[in-house]
Amino acid sequence: RINSDRLWDSIMEMAKIGPGIAGGNNRQTVTDEDGEGRHLFKRWCDVAGLEMGVDEMGTMFARREGTDPSLPPVYVGSHLDTQPTGGKYDGVLGVLGGLEVVRSLNDLGIKTKHPIVVTNWTNEEGARFAPAMMASGVFAGVLDQADVYEHVDKDGKKFGEELERIGWKGTEKVGARQIHAFFELHIEQGPILEDEGIDIGVVTHGQGLKWLQVTLTGKEAHTGSTPMPKRRNAGLGMARVIELVHEIAMDYQPDAVGAVGHMEVYPNSRNIIAGRTVFTIDIRSPEKEVLDAMDGRIREGIDTICEALDIQYKIEQVGHFDPVTFDKGCVKAIRDAAERLGYTHRNIVSGAGHDACWISRVAPTAMVMCPCVDGLSHNEAEEISKEWASAGADVLFHAVVETAVI
Amino acid sequence: RINSDRLWDSIMEMAKIGPGIAGGNNRQTVTDEDGEGRHLFKRWCDVAGLEMGVDEMGTMFARREGTDPSLPPVYVGSHLDTQPTGGKYDGVLGVLGGLEVVRSLNDLGIKTKHPIVVTNWTNEEGARFAPAMMASGVFAGVLDQADVYEHVDKDGKKFGEELERIGWKGTEKVGARQIHAFFELHIEQGPILEDEGIDIGVVTHGQGLKWLQVTLTGKEAHTGSTPMPKRRNAGLGMARVIELVHEIAMDYQPDAVGAVGHMEVYPNSRNIIAGRTVFTIDIRSPEKEVLDAMDGRIREGIDTICEALDIQYKIEQVGHFDPVTFDKGCVKAIRDAAERLGYTHRNIVSGAGHDACWISRVAPTAMVMCPCVDGLSHNEAEEISKEWASAGADVLFHAVVETAVI
Ligand SMILES: NC(=O)NCCC(=O)O
Ligand SMILES: NC(=O)NCCC(=O)O
Repeated sequence: RINSDRLWDSIMEMAKIGPGIAGGNNRQTVTDEDGEGRHLFKRWCDVAGLEMGVDEMGTMFARREGTDPSLPPVYVGSHLDTQPTGGKYDGVLGVLGGLEVVRSLNDLGIKTKHPIVVTNWTNEEGARFAPAMMASGVFAGVLDQADVYEHVDKDGKKFGEELERIGWKGTEKVGARQIHAFFELHIEQGPILEDEGIDIGVVTHGQGLKWLQVTLTGKEAHTGSTPMPKRRNAGLGMARVIELVHEIAMDYQPDAVGAVGHMEVYPNSRNIIAGRTVFTIDIRSPEKEVLDAMDGRIREGIDTICEALDIQYKIEQVGHFDPVTFDKGCVKAIRDAAERLGYTHRNIVSGAGHDACWISRVAPTAMVMCPCVDGLSHNEAEEISKEWASAGADVLFHAVVETAVI
Repeated sequence: RINSDRLWDSIMEMAKIGPGIAGGNNRQTVTDEDGEGRHLFKRWCDVAGLEMGVDEMGTMFARREGTDPSLPPVYVGSHLDTQPTGGKYDGVLGVLGGLEVVRSLNDLGIKTKHPIVVTNWTNEEGARFAPAMMASGVFAGVLDQADVYEHVDKDGKKFGEELERIGWKGTEKVGARQIHAFFELHIEQGPILEDEGIDIGVVTHGQGLKWLQVTLTGKEAHTGSTPMPKRRNAGLGMARVIELVHEIAMDYQPDAVGAVGHMEVYPNSRNIIAGRTVFTIDIRSPEKEVLDAMDGRIREGIDTICEALDIQYKIEQVGHFDPVTFDKGCVKAIRDAAERLGYTHRNIVSGAGHDACWISRVAPTAMVMCPCVDGLSHNEAEEISKEWASAGADVLFHAVVETAVI
């Protein structure tokens, strides 16, 4: 078993960097706070005797040598970046859980045949720069590095320049590594495990996602003196699209979800009818057919809405991944570990996207989940218990060690 | 007749201060640009031999002495502040039209019995700090000076401190002045005059307004992993309220309008269900009963919407004025002037709020309107012709001179 006090202390130590305003964290990707978090993680890796590699996307790879260094490593990790109002565990548990696996191996003096590499993938959240899971997406060859370097945040700052500015743009070519297997521990971010009182989620699938960024262009005009029939209201258009997305998601739920969390309004003045709105639709389903059907209905609906309001629209897909089926062997290693350790477990579908979703395209991959209080995530109040965390890390430990072979 | 070239040149000169990004202006109240605009106006007043007074709300009063200085002055003016994406004429025409009245009197060597005071009312737009018509509202005793000093902009800056910072907080007590009559020239900001090919709008009434700032509180949560029935989506709530406001306005139009132009979303991340939204409803009608009925239906509707979505709401009235009936005598002076000068004219109801609406509560008041292209205002593309401007200023000139008595 891993050292649950040490794991918990490390999580709490990391949470001091980029504190939020309500007990959580604001350690968004490639900010100064992200840089500070990376330095702390590197110090811990140094102490654990790991060798750090950093690729051109800023992803950190901390290697513990195997008895046969020629074998491809087993990778374990997640991400240290957070939402602007994020929790202390989303991503962090997976990275520090991976570090705890290595620390425990060191404690026990266990050597594995395959090297083990603990990873911190850059920009998993996609909050500051779309899309989410950016670095793992480039690693898996699905996203283009030169393209994502140019992606801008709300202040117009470029991802590539910010990565360089914080000093974490490495020299290693992205995606060049051989991966024997990849394991990611993560909090569920949904309510199922807690509701059912189950310790471990064995993640068999991940649902697919589309992010559609919509720009509506109407006409700025006075809210008082412009007659109702003359209005071309981009704010009203946005409202109707938000309702449309909700209705479509309700039609398909529980096999789908949908919402709009990002909205910008121009010029955003009380007495000006909005001339332009920009917002991002987030739709997800474990069924590719459902996701495609939702996408189709949304595009059709936007067209109808905009025609009625005499406004123009542009739809850009700024994020996308198909539903994922994780590797049977890796999934079994996790289920067997939970069974062996006596933890209650069930199969589960990940509602969120994870770096594991992209890595599963290039290597055998699976995920372990532990419950979180009230299913709440992407909220500073996100909470888990120390017991849940250590059960997850125990299972991770056993699955990794079995796969890396003693 | 006034000097239309001089009037036009002055408008164009003022438009150089706080240029927008699309040919209009961003000279929001009590910004550095507002300060610069005020200095230019003061220089022009100095040259015209006017004596400047500034009150504690920053309103500027430029006085041309009457032959009987003991008589209460005739006031004429409007405002120099603009929307963030405002036009060159909204407000400016009224202030510089007032200045042109005085310049023309100087040219012609005409003395009036009553003094004439050209005014620039502070914060008419209400864009940076709610409510609109702030200084005239304090002048009329409807708004509380100490209270509005504390009003904050989006960056949390206080109105009173910003007024002091730009150096235009005067020492004169607000509302102490006697006003014989007040005249305001303004662009229509709606399409009626242009559509009907009419030179002059004789403003008989102004419609009433309510600004309701709504805060919805749901729960921040993950857009992917939170089941639809568990969501408490403050973004969806806002969308439904926007649609509600539109539907109610459509029920009462053409005797009412309604829209939401200001919206804020927290934390505004693509993959976080909005935990909080703040937005302002703008409803207007020339009928007090209609305005009250709309207000009632909106409050009821918000309650129903929020109950269905399990979200909390708070409604604050951040702006309000009842419909206005302008002074019969002043209205007649304007109509007579238009008639005498041979301009086509019609009675009209102001769709927008104006400083004249507040001043009409404490002094005989009326307004002159001239057409604007396509009825467009609160848009950088706002446009008028030189001929329209000078017709309006001619009528203003005659109405003011008649009231101030030669
Ligand atoms: N796990 C997680 O919250 N990832 C962010 C990407 C997503 O929105 O699913
Ligand atoms: N005239 C004008 O645009 N005033 C601003 C206040 C309002 O919204 O009516």
